Amino acid sequence: MPVLYGYFRSSCSWRVRIAFALKGIEYEQKSVNLIKDGGQQLTDQFKAINPMQQVPAVTIDGITLSQSLAIIQYIEETRPEPRLLPADPKQRGQVRIICDIIASGIQPLQNLYVLQKIGADKVQWAQHFINRGFEALEPILKQTAGKYCIGDEISMADICLVPQVYNAERFKVDMSQFPTIRRLNQTLIEIDAFKATHPSCQPDTPDDLQA
Amino acid sequence: MPVLYGYFRSSCSWRVRIAFALKGIEYEQKSVNLIKDGGQQLTDQFKAINPMQQVPAVTIDGITLSQSLAIIQYIEETRPEPRLLPADPKQRGQVRIICDIIASGIQPLQNLYVLQKIGADKVQWAQHFINRGFEALEPILKQTAGKYCIGDEISMADICLVPQVYNAERFKVDMSQFPTIRRLNQTLIEIDAFKATHPSCQPDTPDDLQA
Repeated sequence: MPVLYGYFRSSCSWRVRIAFALKGIEYEQKSVNLIKDGGQQLTDQFKAINPMQQVPAVTIDGITLSQSLAIIQYIEETRPEPRLLPADPKQRGQVRIICDIIASGIQPLQNLYVLQKIGADKVQWAQHFINRGFEALEPILKQTAGKYCIGDEISMADICLVPQVYNAERFKVDMSQFPTIRRLNQTLIEIDAFKATHPSCQPDTPDDLQA
Repeated sequence: MPVLYGYFRSSCSWRVRIAFALKGIEYEQKSVNLIKDGGQQLTDQFKAINPMQQVPAVTIDGITLSQSLAIIQYIEETRPEPRLLPADPKQRGQVRIICDIIASGIQPLQNLYVLQKIGADKVQWAQHFINRGFEALEPILKQTAGKYCIGDEISMADICLVPQVYNAERFKVDMSQFPTIRRLNQTLIEIDAFKATHPSCQPDTPDDLQA
């Protein structure tokens, strides 16, 4: 059975949880507490699993993978049903643009490690980069969206969007500026694979944050 | 013919130039000067091409793509020869881990926009994040590398590595700490597709920076 090393509140861990859930793949969760003891991701034990000292990491089929999009694409290529990337290359391109705007253009700039380095101005910094990314995503999604980010089929773009909106809400970004993103998130968050994997109901979610 | 909107010194633009060159695809370059006039990527005209206001962007087959890895994967899926991703899913996973460590874990934290916001400490900031990423890449590549990043076949991992080493050198990162990365870079930089696309010899390279 695959093992996911993750943390309830890590948006990149949540991406992988959603992918497993959509595919109906059972997996074991091992919690890596990013706060406790100065951060369990910094131990030598975890560094051997992921030299980047970040979650998520996954052991599957005898190998260890890190980086959430690399993990999800490995799952997609080895367990193709239901698919998380459309068949058409142009649509696949659209999915990947949305994934990469989030995974390269937003999330890395507002993750825990970076905000710890920013210090006192961290909320303003996070808001700035989430706003900048969402200002780009909003007109793109307005063009590509149907029921979901790309037409009416759930894809990796949706898997990236929902955890990023969760982060935006944590940092009190004004979501009324982004009606398409907000509408997509509201639809997706009601789907079982997104709901059951939400940070508020994971094995390592502290009692006071449980839904 | 595809059009690449890029900038000679942008490491993400260079990734796309290498991919086109390896595939033998002719393309037109349109320069978006990231410095001049406060940054040509910020104009309304360019915002219509890429709402993220970043290079690269590519128009190809009647569509416009942004985000370098999304662009390269579109090219890979529509022009499969020579391949830039191995056939084996586990090896593809390894390629993508390396790409994503660079594209999500290093480059976004040391790009022009972020460094402008960091201000006076920008060199130290860039060095810190490049060092952190290379400290993770070095042991991974030590395991996966043959002649190139993953075995003896050039892949997207090599396409991401070389421009990131170029950035490391610009920020005077001590590369002697990373013997595997340095050795791979020295091998790759001699290959035509990497040499001909180097920032020192592009149509928009200023005279004083020409090789």
